[in-house]
Amino acid sequence: MARFMDVHSGMVGLTREQLQEAHQKDQAIEREEGVRFIKAWADPKSGKAFCLSEGPSRDAVLRVHDRAGHPTTEIYEVPIDVE
Amino acid sequence: MARFMDVHSGMVGLTREQLQEAHQKDQAIEREEGVRFIKAWADPKSGKAFCLSEGPSRDAVLRVHDRAGHPTTEIYEVPIDVE
Repeated sequence: MARFMDVHSGMVGLTREQLQEAHQKDQAIEREEGVRFIKAWADPKSGKAFCLSEGPSRDAVLRVHDRAGHPTTEIYEVPIDVE
Repeated sequence: MARFMDVHSGMVGLTREQLQEAHQKDQAIEREEGVRFIKAWADPKSGKAFCLSEGPSRDAVLRVHDRAGHPTTEIYEVPIDVE
């Protein structure tokens, strides 16, 4: 299982409710792709959103976003993290 | 106190030890700017790194990175997060 950070653009004006709804749509189907969405952050001003997930591949993560109606192509495997 | 995600590029081949060292350099001086670095993730293949922080302003966060020797200009305030 690998860890990924993906990036969405163009979500200017996004509200907490909209981010929550999008995240729940991902979570409703993520198991079918073996993915787990861990957390998402958004900047309504620039329209950027960042999603942290675990899954078998970047394609699996992108398929969940695609099927949930908010596709992106920008994703990075992040095998290293520190705190 | 606001929350921020900043992005570094060009860190191809970054190791866990190097990320840990960079993160510790930030943490050693962050209080002087009223900033707290929470977590960082990196993709050694693409050379991207993402840092989650809290602080009084994006300039304060960028000043810490700058003073610690790994400046970036890409930063987003992320007032919304869900999990």
